[in-house]
Amino acid sequence: MMLEDMEIDDRFKGIPAGTAPFALRDMGRQGWNLLAGDLPLPAAVLRRSALDANSGWMRAFLAQTGLSLAPHGKTSMCPQLFHRQLADGAWGVTAANIGHATTYRRFGINRILMANQLLSRPDVAWVAAEISRDPDFDFYCLVDSLDGVDLLVRHLRAAAPTRPLNVLLEVGQSGGRTGARSLEDALAVAAAVASVPDLLSLAGIECYEGILPGSDDAAIEARIAELFALMGQVARAVEMKGWFRPGPVLLSAGGSIYYDMAADAMRAIGLSSPVQIVLRSGCYLTHDHGWAQRAWQRLLERSPHLAGLAPAPRPAIELWAYVQSRPDPGRAIVTLGKRDAGTDIDLPMPVAWHRIGGAGPLLLTDHRLIGMNDQHGYLSLPDDSPLRVGDMVCFGISHPCTTFDKWRLLSLVEDDYRVSGGVLTFF
Amino acid sequence: MMLEDMEIDDRFKGIPAGTAPFALRDMGRQGWNLLAGDLPLPAAVLRRSALDANSGWMRAFLAQTGLSLAPHGKTSMCPQLFHRQLADGAWGVTAANIGHATTYRRFGINRILMANQLLSRPDVAWVAAEISRDPDFDFYCLVDSLDGVDLLVRHLRAAAPTRPLNVLLEVGQSGGRTGARSLEDALAVAAAVASVPDLLSLAGIECYEGILPGSDDAAIEARIAELFALMGQVARAVEMKGWFRPGPVLLSAGGSIYYDMAADAMRAIGLSSPVQIVLRSGCYLTHDHGWAQRAWQRLLERSPHLAGLAPAPRPAIELWAYVQSRPDPGRAIVTLGKRDAGTDIDLPMPVAWHRIGGAGPLLLTDHRLIGMNDQHGYLSLPDDSPLRVGDMVCFGISHPCTTFDKWRLLSLVEDDYRVSGGVLTFF
Repeated sequence: MMLEDMEIDDRFKGIPAGTAPFALRDMGRQGWNLLAGDLPLPAAVLRRSALDANSGWMRAFLAQTGLSLAPHGKTSMCPQLFHRQLADGAWGVTAANIGHATTYRRFGINRILMANQLLSRPDVAWVAAEISRDPDFDFYCLVDSLDGVDLLVRHLRAAAPTRPLNVLLEVGQSGGRTGARSLEDALAVAAAVASVPDLLSLAGIECYEGILPGSDDAAIEARIAELFALMGQVARAVEMKGWFRPGPVLLSAGGSIYYDMAADAMRAIGLSSPVQIVLRSGCYLTHDHGWAQRAWQRLLERSPHLAGLAPAPRPAIELWAYVQSRPDPGRAIVTLGKRDAGTDIDLPMPVAWHRIGGAGPLLLTDHRLIGMNDQHGYLSLPDDSPLRVGDMVCFGISHPCTTFDKWRLLSLVEDDYRVSGGVLTFF
Repeated sequence: MMLEDMEIDDRFKGIPAGTAPFALRDMGRQGWNLLAGDLPLPAAVLRRSALDANSGWMRAFLAQTGLSLAPHGKTSMCPQLFHRQLADGAWGVTAANIGHATTYRRFGINRILMANQLLSRPDVAWVAAEISRDPDFDFYCLVDSLDGVDLLVRHLRAAAPTRPLNVLLEVGQSGGRTGARSLEDALAVAAAVASVPDLLSLAGIECYEGILPGSDDAAIEARIAELFALMGQVARAVEMKGWFRPGPVLLSAGGSIYYDMAADAMRAIGLSSPVQIVLRSGCYLTHDHGWAQRAWQRLLERSPHLAGLAPAPRPAIELWAYVQSRPDPGRAIVTLGKRDAGTDIDLPMPVAWHRIGGAGPLLLTDHRLIGMNDQHGYLSLPDDSPLRVGDMVCFGISHPCTTFDKWRLLSLVEDDYRVSGGVLTFF
């Protein structure tokens, strides 16, 4: 499927009602500028200059550390951004499930790390057929329990692929998410994998350090260190047993918050075999005004040497809405709701405003979104707020994943908010 | 566009990977049964028997009260459900914005109540063109401020429709959402509308009682009563001024929680003109296991005479996921995340489980979802939990709107979980 040929019209939220259909490649030729009021609001936009900066940051980080990246595609589910990441040197793309993987395949992604357990008969049947059909398709998934290996083996045996399925043994920590909790448990799973070499091939060790519970940064970071210590123990023990497939051992971890720690910790795992270290950070490319920005500040505290590596990540994703009513003193109602923005970590944050025909956008301080309904937001205003009905407000977000999935199309804008293109998501 | 001809394949979350494309009308002929493990999980299903029951409930309520219904389409954004509601006698469909309205028009909806302010140049231009093009298109939107009327008039004048735009004057309450807060403010807006009869036509009065703040049910219900008192005052005053368009005066309110109160209150508003009362409840058709179920219990406490009217609403929407890991005592990780289910009111609630090949589904008690990531759920288990890796768990939800928008396709299932069809959403 040629993405750039896809027909765009007002079926897509963010495209003006009544727009005649056009090919995605021509989106920048519609003559639209957000600040002129050409787009219906709410609108989600990606600032191209920020994407460029963030792309440059990750290239510099990978060059300095010598690591590989399989960015988690679930963040955006946007093949255009995946291809940008691959052009930047990404090794593959990470998926959360087989639904993601089928989408990636449709858009030409040849290496997929499914950072999750593969369980069900239809999912296994598809993977088995796809690795049999295409010798260049390089696919990995996780195993973390004997029951899970049993299911996978049963379904694989029925599907009879022409080559073994690559798996990564997942380790985890008590109170965390998935993953074997101890060296003993992990080795039992590895032994089960090694016992069916016709069906499974043990490619490496995986963990996810991004969701460990803890009372503060230091406590969480201590648990992360323990997790990587377990990863090292398990990797060395599996290597001693000779259970890894031939070739480099894959070590993979690294979400969007602690990837500096993950990189350092995995580089310190000493194996006799060559090692390939794969990070999976997904949110670096868009960054944000909240969660990712706070994580970045903490990253710089932990790893101050990274500050000078390249220009820092900047928020690329913005949401714009109209003030539709100012019914009470100190309150505006805006056309932005839970259908348009993630609210799982913080509510969107007003950062700028603009009046059509005026000189904006201008910075907006002391305004705060205090609630959202499905299609409305409640904005708390200072006494001297400039906002009137019909004014536009720009919101930053916190956690790109839960905002991307509210939009099938996001406009790419230049720094003057001229629409220069668009990207499609496939949730 | 013929919806039933639309091509379905594994681009849609919920369709097995590798499924050959088929027309939507043939979804029931794929031979799938959820309990046999034929669908990839997570899956969202609608139980047809519950939709039938809920449809019957609302038909009975409208027949008893003599009211009209324009169900809020934002709940599901599902034209197949809209057409079911219209076949059940709905007067029109409610929209939140022009993006919704263009979707409704594409699928043949001729009467749209946009329960929101219409603000922007491109949105007004589309409405003006559409009411000019199609004399049978009956469209309404809200006005609640002089600034809003000014914007609307300016854009309408530029767009030059061949007939005036119908508006409803919105009244609201301090601390609520949109809506003029007093008789005086409302009359000023009505006067502004009446002053441009070539462009605007005042069709009635609107309010939304569903989001008033209050410390408990009684406090909220007292404020709702005040809101409807204001609606009555304004309606009578506007009628005295002669500012309504000829014909019946529309009175519209009624979300999914307090529609019994809205119905009673609007029926008690005495006008000299004939009145048409339009409720906008959107969630009755699917109901749920949480928010809507609690609202229903409270509705029966307020309006006990409704208990015997028809069989009570039942939850029609369910989410199913696999147990993918049981890494810690008392904990299972399931394949259901924030990408799959609304979490804005409550997390999804496990209600049943099934083992493929077993005799389920069986009721599940004492299990609780205690957290969700984007693609995972954390299930807390009792010591004697039957759940193993690979088992299926059925979740009820709380607030249909924020779950529908996670799915472009939901399977329709019979009581034995045979897939008998599918419905598409257009978010």
